[in-house]
Amino acid sequence: MSRLNELLHQAGSIGRNGDGSITRVGFSREYFQALELLKEKMEELGMRTETDPVGNLHGILPGTDPKAGIIAIGSHLDTVIRGGLYDGMLGVAGAIEAAARLREEGRRLRHSLEIWGFNMEESSVLGGTFGSRCVTGKIDPDVPGYKEKLEKFGLSPEIVRSVRRDLEDYKCYLEYHIEQGGRLDASGTDIGVVSGIVSVVRYDVTARGMSNHAGTTMMDSRKDALTGMAKLIVGAEKRARELNDTLVFTVGKLSVLPGQENVIPGQAEATFEMRHMDKTMTDQLFADIKRMAEEIPDCTFEFSNSAAKYSTPCDPRLIRLIDQVCEKKNIRHVIMPSGAFHDANPMAQAGVPIGMIFVPSVKGISHQGEEYTAPHHVDLGADVLYETVLELDEKGLDQMGAAAAAIK
Amino acid sequence: MSRLNELLHQAGSIGRNGDGSITRVGFSREYFQALELLKEKMEELGMRTETDPVGNLHGILPGTDPKAGIIAIGSHLDTVIRGGLYDGMLGVAGAIEAAARLREEGRRLRHSLEIWGFNMEESSVLGGTFGSRCVTGKIDPDVPGYKEKLEKFGLSPEIVRSVRRDLEDYKCYLEYHIEQGGRLDASGTDIGVVSGIVSVVRYDVTARGMSNHAGTTMMDSRKDALTGMAKLIVGAEKRARELNDTLVFTVGKLSVLPGQENVIPGQAEATFEMRHMDKTMTDQLFADIKRMAEEIPDCTFEFSNSAAKYSTPCDPRLIRLIDQVCEKKNIRHVIMPSGAFHDANPMAQAGVPIGMIFVPSVKGISHQGEEYTAPHHVDLGADVLYETVLELDEKGLDQMGAAAAAIK
Repeated sequence: MSRLNELLHQAGSIGRNGDGSITRVGFSREYFQALELLKEKMEELGMRTETDPVGNLHGILPGTDPKAGIIAIGSHLDTVIRGGLYDGMLGVAGAIEAAARLREEGRRLRHSLEIWGFNMEESSVLGGTFGSRCVTGKIDPDVPGYKEKLEKFGLSPEIVRSVRRDLEDYKCYLEYHIEQGGRLDASGTDIGVVSGIVSVVRYDVTARGMSNHAGTTMMDSRKDALTGMAKLIVGAEKRARELNDTLVFTVGKLSVLPGQENVIPGQAEATFEMRHMDKTMTDQLFADIKRMAEEIPDCTFEFSNSAAKYSTPCDPRLIRLIDQVCEKKNIRHVIMPSGAFHDANPMAQAGVPIGMIFVPSVKGISHQGEEYTAPHHVDLGADVLYETVLELDEKGLDQMGAAAAAIK
Repeated sequence: MSRLNELLHQAGSIGRNGDGSITRVGFSREYFQALELLKEKMEELGMRTETDPVGNLHGILPGTDPKAGIIAIGSHLDTVIRGGLYDGMLGVAGAIEAAARLREEGRRLRHSLEIWGFNMEESSVLGGTFGSRCVTGKIDPDVPGYKEKLEKFGLSPEIVRSVRRDLEDYKCYLEYHIEQGGRLDASGTDIGVVSGIVSVVRYDVTARGMSNHAGTTMMDSRKDALTGMAKLIVGAEKRARELNDTLVFTVGKLSVLPGQENVIPGQAEATFEMRHMDKTMTDQLFADIKRMAEEIPDCTFEFSNSAAKYSTPCDPRLIRLIDQVCEKKNIRHVIMPSGAFHDANPMAQAGVPIGMIFVPSVKGISHQGEEYTAPHHVDLGADVLYETVLELDEKGLDQMGAAAAAIK
């Protein structure tokens, strides 16, 4: 087993459940145990390390040229409840592998190399990508009610604000991650060069009809909110498939009122989520859904926008560079969007050019104990990451021509 | 306001909520307050009264001919949470009105007249029509777990068994009730002569797909259990409308697992309920639903039968008699099935011939504070009930020819 695969398994032994899944949620005892393990690994490699009050791990390998700036690599150390071995941890362990290879090969970079192991990237009451949003300042701890949520973790708005970094010297942020979808695995592709992170648009959708007795109310007198909602879901799902190959539409939550087997639902509430790189595509789908809703008889629909995170493109120079590294190494690769959010999002929002490398998730399974990436893919992605860092260090991102970037 | 409407409002003042609805659930303080009120009314009319340990009220007006047997009239005294003025109470108050008119008109019946005010007809952990099932013995208090449920109400299997009556002398059971549906109101009909109570067939339906990330899993790789369930609901609802005018199909409960906005549902659970007088009709619908389920891609369905209460016909002689009473009085009436259950069900199951009289529910609203039946309909139904009792007493049910009954 390679050094990197060994580190992954060592980290994965912390918080391991009986069913093989891993529970290492942000701020948990298991989270900090894993953090300590990676911190020691960094220190063994001669890196300076620090942790911050929101539970992020930070390692620094100073460069030879103080003016060259910083190449940052990172991902997150937390998992969902009953999550897998690779989501998040792969990126941090992969970055440590890069530092190990530098040491092994006796190389010193011009740029400083900084590794981030972020806390609480996964959804929580604090919102996703919590740790990286604190570091990049892409968080407003003063929104009403947030203080109370922070207090549950022993935090305060002041602490959150204190964690923010000046990112002026960050030349780029690279993140190595599992795909979490099944595209690479299904097509036998080994590396995904990420073009950007899709936009996510969410609506809370309410269908209102009229609650009534399920025995005495004939079909033609009903205003069944659930039947109306079911029609809209079927129609919206079909439309999403028609519009575009990479447009996704999901109803993940649905509840019915009053929710008794012998009462016609007077109300049905659902979440509609749509994702795509191109905002016009999600706008088109939503417009079509609204039109369909108007044509559904016997109930009225209300749409309330609950999220609108627009797509985050990766830096064209980084896309091109990673693409070239793959070409040179004869790796079967593809340029593709990320359907999931990552710590790269707040980094990009803070103005740092981002680049991302994906490796295949077998059967596209993620956020479960069955999450699996083959050991040779684990090593291959780390190799692409390492080569990308070497190229970046040599050429310097500022010197690369953005115009030449051709996104397949 | 008529005496009957006044009694209804007096009873409705007990357990009245701020929004005008009434909460008088079985075994509550409000339930027993209302019971006491009706008990006093019965006693004022010279009736002998008793209550039993499961909270039923029983009034007896002895007849002149001990061999003539008993004409029973009844309904229930409890309401759902935030229920209405009429459901249940109308039938008991209407029976008391019949006794009041007998006294007023100085009549004595050959048959004994017995009035039942049953407890807990509405759904509860003890099951619907609890009070009348105890009286008729149509309850098995020894099923596992039931003892513990009874204990919550200070009851035991022994108490339940002790309440059972010998119904040999019951010539018939009449129940006067609001329709709870909108058929009479919509068609401008004043009385519904009930042909029988429909069968209710219920299934717990589980759709299984595969839970996955809502961003990274493309549409053509999904096994979305909710989309599959939505398709089945839409198809089943359409099929129910096609099959028969009085066939009803309801999905009153639906839940989604894991139930997060950013996760494709791996499982969806729903209750499918269908009602009709004719079992072949509900059987046909279920067969069609199963066939549809097999054709839905990407998920599998499991059906578990949770209820199969077959239809209960009213006694043809009683249908004919009530029909004739309406004819004689030139009342716009219709012979129609009841889509809801009533205390008449266990009575019929115990071998007592049943007859039921419906009055219109405005807009078909029931089980809500807005439940409303016009005062003149309240009085009209009571009048039909009274005339039916007089005819029955004179002719004797046993002497009526069943063969002549023509059900429209």
